[in-house]
Amino acid sequence: MDPIGKRRWAIAEGYIPKESVSDDYALRSHETVCILNAGEREANVAITVFYTDRDPPPAHRVKVPPRRTLHLRFCDIGVPRGTDYASVIESDVPIVVQHTRLDSRRAEISLLSTIAYTE
Amino acid sequence: MDPIGKRRWAIAEGYIPKESVSDDYALRSHETVCILNAGEREANVAITVFYTDRDPPPAHRVKVPPRRTLHLRFCDIGVPRGTDYASVIESDVPIVVQHTRLDSRRAEISLLSTIAYTE
Amino acid sequence: MDPIGKRRWAIAEGYIPKESVSDDYALRSHETVCILNAGEREANVAITVFYTDRDPPPAHRVKVPPRRTLHLRFCDIGVPRGTDYASVIESDVPIVVQHTRLDSRRAEISLLSTIAYTE
Amino acid sequence: MDPIGKRRWAIAEGYIPKESVSDDYALRSHETVCILNAGEREANVAITVFYTDRDPPPAHRVKVPPRRTLHLRFCDIGVPRGTDYASVIESDVPIVVQHTRLDSRRAEISLLSTIAYTE
Repeated sequence: MDPIGKRRWAIAEGYIPKESVSDDYALRSHETVCILNAGEREANVAITVFYTDRDPPPAHRVKVPPRRTLHLRFCDIGVPRGTDYASVIESDVPIVVQHTRLDSRRAEISLLSTIAYTE
Repeated sequence: MDPIGKRRWAIAEGYIPKESVSDDYALRSHETVCILNAGEREANVAITVFYTDRDPPPAHRVKVPPRRTLHLRFCDIGVPRGTDYASVIESDVPIVVQHTRLDSRRAEISLLSTIAYTE
Repeated sequence: MDPIGKRRWAIAEGYIPKESVSDDYALRSHETVCILNAGEREANVAITVFYTDRDPPPAHRVKVPPRRTLHLRFCDIGVPRGTDYASVIESDVPIVVQHTRLDSRRAEISLLSTIAYTE
Repeated sequence: MDPIGKRRWAIAEGYIPKESVSDDYALRSHETVCILNAGEREANVAITVFYTDRDPPPAHRVKVPPRRTLHLRFCDIGVPRGTDYASVIESDVPIVVQHTRLDSRRAEISLLSTIAYTE
């Protein structure tokens, strides 16, 4: 398959709720960056997180194999809960990026999702 | 009407919850690819599904008649529940693609939607 | 303000739930097309609705004054409940289009939204 | 990091629910404009709000420091609750804009989000 996507993406929204009604991993409040590498070369991806009141820490690096998708939780790369943030995702090959939150602060879950910004 | 859309689309998020609070078809947890073919020629569409740990299986093929929309559930084209996935949608004529999840793991439903990525 | 937007937009998803837990107009299940006309000329807008099994009926026409927004419910322009649909929105001046559903089939409400597709 | 984003954005949807089930600031019904300034220069941002029945009031102005994100609630810049609105966000340097609603009219919260429109 021909590659699809771009090398630079941004997500302006970010907030991982502190509370979760459930201890089930799938239902714990989280935000995810979903990355698709539909091409034939491994993607070396750098994720930079921006905050409201301090400089971004060094980028988190992750590899996505060819013809694979990776759904990565921001809490698993050091983003604290209860804090506004944003992110830029950079890759050496074309990828596609989507952003999702599962929010289980109350008894029921709530979801949001959007394609990330690219140019 | 003049055709509107593109021939290649990608959705980086994919996850069909295992559980559903209801047996009602409309309220069972599902993810949908919504395709609009606003043009005057039939669309031959190929949907390729990507996983985290194995190569994509052969594409699922579907036709969308001219001046019609098709809302297709991923569980109806072989995508398993409880598994991260992503998808690429390719057509021989311009189409428009949107992605939706209805999640009814808990007593209430939750929804997400986003326009797919195109280039 | 300089105009912002495009003249042709498409929304591939469409489904107005049949049920609503509340008779309150604000909480009744609905889908909305949100139109922003930020420019200095009135927008003459045509909304064409596509179905899965029949040709689109004649377009619904609506005017959006300059420097105004219009949030229009699809049920108020003849789209039936419980039916898959999609839409194309065309204007004679640049506009911006966003799509939203409020779903109150169960006791709680659920929301989805996405920017529409444009080219 | 090279700047990412554009200087003009638009959000066609806007509606801040009147009711909130909780007095907790985080769970009160709100809509947010999330702005990312990933570049090295301060962003001078003007947010213009459009209504259905009157001209837009003077733009609200806000600064976003370099390498920072700002998540701003529309109710904190004078947008009334229970009213349809839309917005245009303009900056003197590239930014990325995303739109979010947290709706807590009922006992549970519901979320929506989308990347804003840019050109």
